[in-house]
Amino acid sequence: MNHDLQVLFGRRLAELRKQKGWSQEQLALESGIARSYLGGVERGQRNIALLNICKLAKTLGVPVGELFTYINKSLPPM
Amino acid sequence: MNHDLQVLFGRRLAELRKQKGWSQEQLALESGIARSYLGGVERGQRNIALLNICKLAKTLGVPVGELFTYINKSLPPM
Repeated sequence: MNHDLQVLFGRRLAELRKQKGWSQEQLALESGIARSYLGGVERGQRNIALLNICKLAKTLGVPVGELFTYINKSLPPM
Repeated sequence: MNHDLQVLFGRRLAELRKQKGWSQEQLALESGIARSYLGGVERGQRNIALLNICKLAKTLGVPVGELFTYINKSLPPM
């Protein structure tokens, strides 16, 4: 399940980025996060941490929860 | 600003935990995350990563975004 969560996060990140018409390079430039790392996050290969999650939400101008839209749909309540 | 985000996340986590009437031990037991680590997160000393964030949200039975309520209020849009 873990890998799926990273993939779902990455898919939503890429979606939000493209909605702004940004390339990964642009998002890297705007956020200050390395382009290569962002590529890994979008491919679902990174267990991204709180501070970078917040940095991305702020850069994209969305509430942090917006990055978890697909994850919320996949997480069955306990 | 980084430390503040960790403190805001930790404050919200503790609030949601207490709303369930759980001790840190109970949340640790239910989530499978070490009690000592949870204590650090609640004190704002940990840069918690995606998978543990999702594990906590699922355990608490809330959408992931609920954990970011205070952070969202503090993040001025770019």
